[in-house]
Amino acid sequence: MSRPIAILGGTGPAGMGLALRWARAGESVVIGSRNAELAEAAANQIRDKAGASAQVRGTTNAEACASCDLLALTVPFEGQAGLLKELKTALKAGSILMDATVPLAASIGGRASRTLGVWQGSAAQQTAELVPKGVTVVGAFQNCSADAMNGDDPVECDVIVCSDNPEATQTVCGLVTKIPGLRAIDGGKLENSRIVEQVTALLIGLNIRHKGHGGIRITGLPAAAYRTAG
Amino acid sequence: MSRPIAILGGTGPAGMGLALRWARAGESVVIGSRNAELAEAAANQIRDKAGASAQVRGTTNAEACASCDLLALTVPFEGQAGLLKELKTALKAGSILMDATVPLAASIGGRASRTLGVWQGSAAQQTAELVPKGVTVVGAFQNCSADAMNGDDPVECDVIVCSDNPEATQTVCGLVTKIPGLRAIDGGKLENSRIVEQVTALLIGLNIRHKGHGGIRITGLPAAAYRTAG
Repeated sequence: MSRPIAILGGTGPAGMGLALRWARAGESVVIGSRNAELAEAAANQIRDKAGASAQVRGTTNAEACASCDLLALTVPFEGQAGLLKELKTALKAGSILMDATVPLAASIGGRASRTLGVWQGSAAQQTAELVPKGVTVVGAFQNCSADAMNGDDPVECDVIVCSDNPEATQTVCGLVTKIPGLRAIDGGKLENSRIVEQVTALLIGLNIRHKGHGGIRITGLPAAAYRTAG
Repeated sequence: MSRPIAILGGTGPAGMGLALRWARAGESVVIGSRNAELAEAAANQIRDKAGASAQVRGTTNAEACASCDLLALTVPFEGQAGLLKELKTALKAGSILMDATVPLAASIGGRASRTLGVWQGSAAQQTAELVPKGVTVVGAFQNCSADAMNGDDPVECDVIVCSDNPEATQTVCGLVTKIPGLRAIDGGKLENSRIVEQVTALLIGLNIRHKGHGGIRITGLPAAAYRTAG
């Protein structure tokens, strides 16, 4: 049986997209929110779209951490540090925390096509500093368009997966390939997330300019570099 | 008749790749170097690969600036500011300077998968500060693998073209689409080069990790956003 996946702060578009796609893939999904009722309503929405057999429920972020050791973090940057501090005692050692956070300047009223400088280098590295010892942070999914993720078509995007723990990278690559269209690429160390995060701001700028839902594909690597569903 | 294109500091792999591809497309190319003999030898190499009818010659960087108003800058970051200062009087008002420079940490003995922070925001913005008034700087070609550009196959890469002058952006987009495989995307203002430049460091990291010649494709934009040869 596959391990349940908690989506912390999961009622926004990025979280809902992941929940929908994993639920459709037959994964067991727990949507976390500060407000358990909002989380339950979000879970109902996912069930409406993914079908009644979808294994999805909503609960508080803390309870979601307690019941899962695969966690995805999908809050806006301005909510990231606060949520992680709140969850300090709830996060279990041995958990893998997938961080999709991007430090968009929109967090402080600036443009979503610009980023903030994060002292640690990236939002993912800030997360790594804030989680308890034994929790492994993996940067992933930052470049996936929430619109595309919440739709029905395969998502035309490569997910560059960065962490300092190769086993955790492999686990997350496996979760990426549950989602039709996505390919996972091992992006090396967590510090490389800083560029992956920036790419999101570039894509947002292109989306505004050209009215699209941009993603990226990496070309020119040997076939073995791309992990796909097959 | 098409306007000749000068490639300043054009004897390295990035410059040679552009020279080869434009020469093959029938463009008139002037390779510039500090050393005119080196530039001539480089031009001969291009002619050997592109055919005797290729319009390519080598000369000094200053003479290349004098004889062309389409200029590409392809020196390593550590040589960028020095070369631009040398060429301050040679650069003509009305010229378009395509800047492919990336501020890799390798410039100061660090890793090519990391970048330096540039005070102006990006290497292209540094260039904009160093050129005489009337020269328009356009960030482009940073993400094209030199290996792929120096080969024979279509180059699987999108070129995100950034400048503060929409006409110059369009001119450069036209030059991008002379090269088989490349698509040009208007990336908006020159400041957006800062992310495009970072992507090169990400690709270099992926190349090292996976032994490839990585490029990027942007997905999910409407067809009109992609300028292609057709």
